Amino acid sequence: MSKPFVLYTFPTPNGHKVSCFLEELKAVYPNIDYDVEKVDISKNTQKEPWFIKLNPNGRIPVLVDRLRDNFAVFETAAILLYLQQHYDKDNKFGWDPVKNPNEYSETLQWIFFAHGGVGPMQGQLNHFNKFAPEDIPYAKKRYLDETKRLYGVLEIRLSQGRDWLVGSGRGTFSVADVNVVPWVRLHAFSGVETLDEWPNVKKWVETVNARQGFAAGLLVGK
Amino acid sequence: MSKPFVLYTFPTPNGHKVSCFLEELKAVYPNIDYDVEKVDISKNTQKEPWFIKLNPNGRIPVLVDRLRDNFAVFETAAILLYLQQHYDKDNKFGWDPVKNPNEYSETLQWIFFAHGGVGPMQGQLNHFNKFAPEDIPYAKKRYLDETKRLYGVLEIRLSQGRDWLVGSGRGTFSVADVNVVPWVRLHAFSGVETLDEWPNVKKWVETVNARQGFAAGLLVGK
Repeated sequence: MSKPFVLYTFPTPNGHKVSCFLEELKAVYPNIDYDVEKVDISKNTQKEPWFIKLNPNGRIPVLVDRLRDNFAVFETAAILLYLQQHYDKDNKFGWDPVKNPNEYSETLQWIFFAHGGVGPMQGQLNHFNKFAPEDIPYAKKRYLDETKRLYGVLEIRLSQGRDWLVGSGRGTFSVADVNVVPWVRLHAFSGVETLDEWPNVKKWVETVNARQGFAAGLLVGK
Repeated sequence: MSKPFVLYTFPTPNGHKVSCFLEELKAVYPNIDYDVEKVDISKNTQKEPWFIKLNPNGRIPVLVDRLRDNFAVFETAAILLYLQQHYDKDNKFGWDPVKNPNEYSETLQWIFFAHGGVGPMQGQLNHFNKFAPEDIPYAKKRYLDETKRLYGVLEIRLSQGRDWLVGSGRGTFSVADVNVVPWVRLHAFSGVETLDEWPNVKKWVETVNARQGFAAGLLVGK
């Protein structure tokens, strides 16, 4: 029997968001499994017509759900929320929008914070530090400052007596965390040497990195 | 009796996303109303401690819901989805995640596409074109090219026999559209003189701009 999902991916922070969450789900729900189709972004495979049909934006990752008529989902955060809604039946990694509307909204708030902030800004930092053909100190400083400011926002949240971004009390590990740790853990690559300035963020990243499922997800597509 | 919501905002594309949606809701549901608290970002009011308590990211807009124990929502897209879930009872501007899971997911996909792409990239274009103290041709070109590429992705979607980003048939005007038109309509300010290259996007922006609710929202906070 074929596996429930196909994951089109490449081992980048955005690819890791989804492979790490799939591995977390797999550790809890034995029926979760997926084929990996590696999309080599160094060869621009994600811009080929067959892939544009799956995601008009031409970006990895994309999830195809064989159990639901090959429904295709693009955008990392939309994939996490899709998987959580349909396949995390016990809501171990998220909250039901009707039964727990406040936690559901807080999940969306922190996911959007990361999706519009940490991802794109740290991505620009990587571009100007590693890939741009010109040395542009102004842009390097702009995106370094902004990336650090965004880590500071996560620190504000995590310093409020909590271990996780969302959930009552100290919070619960959820899609909100999976959605952003794959970026923050690569701070050194991006030119932010240590996380010492944000001790709660540092501890949070270390705790997530040490999870068996998350760690397995980091190996997918290598 | 006090109005149901307080909207902390300023007339930027991100502010408009929410004020335009509130006006669209108001046109359909007579009980929708809100106070506007103008947060002057030219004076960095959004970085003051009282505002950081509402949104640790220090960004407008923020919605406070007096009907639900002053629950505060930050991040434009999270506010749209919150309002749609709680106050668009007939699902005129969105889809129920359980009854219409595919349309709900497609809504999230296009919202995340805009939230991580059009907004931040057009925002960088504005920065390098209008606000940066140095003239950096490389960065101007980078963000101009990317903004145009993203408009092209919207064109792919809208050229597939549809008027709106999400919904069966030609689609239905929804939060997915409200979430991105406030950016695209300001293309000329950002240095993209016309939308002629993307005829379906052009028509779509014109149609949304002409809506009474949307147009009313553009005046909020002025």
